[in-house]
Parts: sequence; C-alpha cells; structure tokens
Amino acid sequence: MNMLAKRARDIEPSSTLAITARAKEMRKDGLDVVNFAAGEPDFDTPQYIKEAAISSIEEGFTKYTPSSGIGELKAAIQRKLKSDNNLDYELEQIVVSCGAKHSLFNIIQVLVDKGKEVIIPSPYWVSYLEMVKFAQGKPVIVKTEKKDSFKLSALALSKNITKKTKLLILNSPSNPAGYIYTEKELEALAEVCVKNKLFVISDEIYEKLIYGNNRHVSIASLNKDIYRLTFVVNGVSKAYSMTGWRIGYLAGDREIVEATARLQDHSTSCPCSISQKAALAALSSPDEFIDKMRLEFETRRNLILAGLDKLGLEYIKPEGAFYVFVDISKTKMPSWDFSNKFLEEKYVAAIPGGAFGNDNYVRFSFATSKEQIAKGIQRLREFLR
Amino acid sequence: MNMLAKRARDIEPSSTLAITARAKEMRKDGLDVVNFAAGEPDFDTPQYIKEAAISSIEEGFTKYTPSSGIGELKAAIQRKLKSDNNLDYELEQIVVSCGAKHSLFNIIQVLVDKGKEVIIPSPYWVSYLEMVKFAQGKPVIVKTEKKDSFKLSALALSKNITKKTKLLILNSPSNPAGYIYTEKELEALAEVCVKNKLFVISDEIYEKLIYGNNRHVSIASLNKDIYRLTFVVNGVSKAYSMTGWRIGYLAGDREIVEATARLQDHSTSCPCSISQKAALAALSSPDEFIDKMRLEFETRRNLILAGLDKLGLEYIKPEGAFYVFVDISKTKMPSWDFSNKFLEEKYVAAIPGGAFGNDNYVRFSFATSKEQIAKGIQRLREFLR
Repeated sequence: MNMLAKRARDIEPSSTLAITARAKEMRKDGLDVVNFAAGEPDFDTPQYIKEAAISSIEEGFTKYTPSSGIGELKAAIQRKLKSDNNLDYELEQIVVSCGAKHSLFNIIQVLVDKGKEVIIPSPYWVSYLEMVKFAQGKPVIVKTEKKDSFKLSALALSKNITKKTKLLILNSPSNPAGYIYTEKELEALAEVCVKNKLFVISDEIYEKLIYGNNRHVSIASLNKDIYRLTFVVNGVSKAYSMTGWRIGYLAGDREIVEATARLQDHSTSCPCSISQKAALAALSSPDEFIDKMRLEFETRRNLILAGLDKLGLEYIKPEGAFYVFVDISKTKMPSWDFSNKFLEEKYVAAIPGGAFGNDNYVRFSFATSKEQIAKGIQRLREFLR
Repeated sequence: MNMLAKRARDIEPSSTLAITARAKEMRKDGLDVVNFAAGEPDFDTPQYIKEAAISSIEEGFTKYTPSSGIGELKAAIQRKLKSDNNLDYELEQIVVSCGAKHSLFNIIQVLVDKGKEVIIPSPYWVSYLEMVKFAQGKPVIVKTEKKDSFKLSALALSKNITKKTKLLILNSPSNPAGYIYTEKELEALAEVCVKNKLFVISDEIYEKLIYGNNRHVSIASLNKDIYRLTFVVNGVSKAYSMTGWRIGYLAGDREIVEATARLQDHSTSCPCSISQKAALAALSSPDEFIDKMRLEFETRRNLILAGLDKLGLEYIKPEGAFYVFVDISKTKMPSWDFSNKFLEEKYVAAIPGGAFGNDNYVRFSFATSKEQIAKGIQRLREFLR
C-alpha cells in the first residue's frame, strides 16, 4: 500500500458493490435472488435512441469529437436546460462528460483545493465524499432530521459554514432518501449560499422521475445570484434508461466549466462518439418514454410502500427517484448486518444505509418488477419474524 | 481564476487544439485545407466490430457494467497481452477505461504523490506532463539527442534519477518521434529502473502500427523484476481505428491496478457498455484489418519521406505510429510560427514541435490519403521558397 499516492490510499472501495457482487454470485449459483439494490431503471433504452446510435455507427461516426462534446449535443442540452429548467447557458458553459458521475468528479477536482470544506448533507451518495477526499478537500457531513425527510435546512447549512467552506452539494430528487426540495426550501438555502458566496453543485440526475404532485425546481433558476454560483449536473442515464452509454453534463460559470473541459482534454478526451449521438436523439424527442416509465415507477412505489406499511416499517416517502429509505432501527440490527442477513437468509439484496451515512436505514430500490417487489416484501415479512 | 483550485489553474489548454480548431474553421469557410495534424487513423472502424456493437445495442446491453470492465473483455485483453506481448496477468491485474488516455490519467493519479518526480523523455506527448502536474508531481523533462532518434538512453535516465523519482513514462512506438525502442535499448533502461526501484508506464498504444523490419517489445516482458514495476497501457483506438469508442486498458501490479479501479468507481463508473462489446470483437479477431491499414500507412510514410527528402528537410525516420517529426531549424522559424504561417498561407495543418517540447520541429501526420500527402508536400515546397 505504501507504493500508492496518499490520495489513492484514501479511496474507499464502493461498499455497495460488495452486496451486489454477492447477489450476482448467488444468482449464478441458481438462487432466486430479489434485487432491491438496483441503481438503474430496469427498462431497455428506447428504440428510437438505439436507432440513432446504430445509424451513427453505420455512418462511421466513430472518431474523436471535441473533448467537451459535439456542438449539436451541447445545443440540445442548452435547449433542455431552457425549456425544462428555465436556465440560460451559452454553449461554452456546457461540457459533456462520460456520465453525470464524471461531471461531478471533474467539477469537484477543479473547484476544491486542499483543506477546503465541502458541505454534504447526510444521508449522501457515497461518491460525493470520495470525490471531495480525492481533491484533498474536507467533506463536512451535515446530519439532517427524519422529521424533515432528511432535507438540509437553511439553519443547519448556516451553522456548518466556516471560512474554509467552498461548496455545497445538493441532490434533488435525492438518492437515497427520495425527497425533493420545494422551491421555498431551495430559496432559503440559496439565500445562505449567496450571502456566504458558496458554490453549489446541484445534482439533478433523477429530475424526470417524480411522483404525485411534486415538481422539480433547479436551485440555479431562482435568481441571478444563485445562478452564478451553481453548477447543474444532469445526464441521460436515469431519464432515458441509458446508464451503460455514459453521457452526463455540467453547466455553470464559463471560466470554471472551461477548466473542467481542459481537465477532460488531458484525462479522458471526448465521451463515446456513438453515445453522444444517442444522447442527442434522447434529448431531441418528446418525453413519451419518460412518462411511461415514470408512471410504472409510481405504481411500483405505491406497491412497495403499501407492503412496508403492512409490516409496520417507517420510511421516508419517496417523492422522486426510485428508492425507499426504510427505518430498520426497530430490528436493532445495524444496517450492514441487516443487509447481509437479508441477502444470505432470504435472498433479497438491498443497500445498507450505512453506505449513505445512516446505519439505521436500508435503501430499497423499486427499479424492479411488481412481481419481484411483491416477492421481496413477502420475504421481508418472513425475515422480520 | 482565483475561484479555481490550484491544480485546475495549472492545467494548460491543449495547444494542438488551437491549430486543429483553426483548420476546421478554414475548411468550414470552404478553404481546401490539407490535414497533416490528424491524431487518429482515417480508416473507418471495421465492419465486424460495428456489427458486434449494433448487436449489443439491439440486445439491450445498455446498462452499467462493472466499473473496471466486463469479464469477457478483460479475458480477451489477458489473451492479447499473452499472445502479442508474452505477458501473464490475472484478470484482477487488468482495468478497462474510457480510452488509453484515461488509463494513463488514472495510474498517474494513483501513483504520484505531491513532489514526486516523474521522468518524461522529450519530445513528449503533452498530456503526460499535464497528468503529472495534476497529481502535483514534478515532471522531469529529459532532453534526448537527434542522433539517437530522440530515444532516452540508460545514461540520461540514470543521471536524472533523484531520491524523489517514482516513475518513468515510456512511449514506444513514439508520438511524435516515431521511434521504437529495440529490445537491447529496453534492457538497458529496465536495468536502471530495477536498480532504482522506479515504476514504468509503458504506453504501447501505437504497437500495431510498425514499419519495415521493426518489432515491438514490451519492456514488461523482459524479466520478472521489470514486469513487477511496469504498467502496460494500450487500447483499441489506433489499432482498430476506434478512437471515438473510448476503450483503453491498464495492466500491472494487482494492488495498484485495483486502486485505479476504485478511482474509476468514484470518478466515471464503467466505460461505455456498447464500446466494451465492440472492443471485445476487435480483440477476438485475427489481425487482417490491422495488416491492411499498416501496409497503407507504410506506403504513405514512404511517400511523405520521399517528398521531404526532395525538399532537403531532415527528420526522424518513423519506425512506427503515423507521424514524421521534421527538423525545421533551417527555416529559422520557431515551430509555432511555422505551423501558424503554413496553415494561414498554404492551408496545411501540422502540429508545432513546441507542443511536444521541441521548438525546432514540426509533426506531420500521414494518417491522410496519398493525394493529400502529395498536395501537402507540394504546398510545403512553395512555402519553403
């Protein structure tokens, strides 16, 4: 280990991978595993997107593109950000990356100097933490309250700001807690950020998967001041069931976004040319597919929530994304034990809340069929006995 | 600029991009631009590879894969490294990335601590420098001699090693100088590396494009000691004309390679799933396409060299890759002036040697048609008058 650079020694292995790898192994051994661990839609990529990709291959669109993405795709992203989010960006303010994770990694590396503090509300997506550590920044994990659905309050934000604070990372709709910040809540957070000149990364990857009367608002759209401080990260992975294609994007302050483009010049070059054409097709079409998928997820959400209700388990009601964050404290098991036992004894894979910073919870994904959900809930009933 | 992290302020924009962007602009304006600047084969990706990709799309292979690549592709890479390079690796020693550039970036970030020295022979590919700087390492540029075709000698290597030296970066066949290290030369370098416990990155991306009686040897294959210290980087981009697909790979010490996989977990996730299937097809087939392309490049090389000979220009005779590094010192122009004027006056794009650390040279790519080569040489004749 001492041959590794310090920054490399500090990277934690993705803890969720252990569970999914074990589940896969069990499935290979012929066991009937229910997958409540999925982090991607179980839908196929829509046919019209596939066809656009196939055409691009046939036409030989298989060469380098500009590192930051082809102009047509940037223009489509520009239109999307305007029409969906009421955000105005020049093309130079947009960079296309190998997935939203890559956009997040790049912007964090470019913004965060050694020792700078980055506020991450808990529960959090674990890669935020690792990206900040890799930049030698200091993740400041801010605990949130169950009664607030684990949303960060303006007060809690204020209390955690120091002279070293550079950045706040928001994720709405949230993985794992499924909440969506309301416009009013975002306004309160934005006010604190503007007052303290805090940059904001707004990870909006689950934007299109929202339920009931909930609405997605981008914090960047609230006013000019917060617009200037915000980096919007989004992509086609979750909305169009395109996780394997690896296309995400970043939009924000031109100078800083251009620095991420320079980083891309020297670290990855362009995202896959074919995937860029596929993403262009995705963003250039009406939301029919999304609507269909969203409705199906809403049905599944209601099904899994009804099941949990019957078992008397509490949870954060998901307003968006495709996860239920379930309170398992009454089982008296730490989340890792819960997840491991549930998998080994009942063949159900679910991600321990400890992986997101809360050991009293387990994340159940409903990106799986209604039959699987019913089966998983039945097994949970047996498991809880 | 002061909002950027220091590491981001230090990234230089890719200087070669300015020339190629200007050439593109001129072409858009209807000017007949000859492209001696290309960094990729002008062949289309072979049909059988395209078909494999199309099948994978049709079959819905559009989901996340393991971050470090699918097992089948790793196994194909394992076989390739054995049969082509006589190198034995376990699957755990191999990581698939979004292009060879990405593999290089990851291994450098994982190996190089702040202040550690990395030896880079000049002329060099500019991204090596930027990757090392990004890791806060110190690039130690070692000048080489024209009489040695700009190859690094064991003596020059020895002289530049200090207590802080961690790593040597080799690139054979070389971009931009076109040389190939012989087995004997590699043995001498390896001896110094082993003696000083220096890690080696061996960038072998141009492996398949070699001319005359030249032969590619991987330094890792020389003996057990240098094997343990070497990280082999390669990919499908240049060999199979797949630059836009973005698939490269890294093989070496298990513990360190696994650290790059963890970095990938948190920075990009998997390379594009479809591209992985395409790369699998590429590596699972005989070298027919490569042989055809190689022969065509050899003809073009001979054509451009004959033209340069007639103009009385000296150059490093390319043994591999698809570039001629041309000595322009007799024009008394610094390379940037030469390239800019040549483009503006004669509409020929070529990359200034200054971008590779040698201002007396210009890099001419022969990854373009014979007609274009003839036209470019004719314009060079006029330009030199």
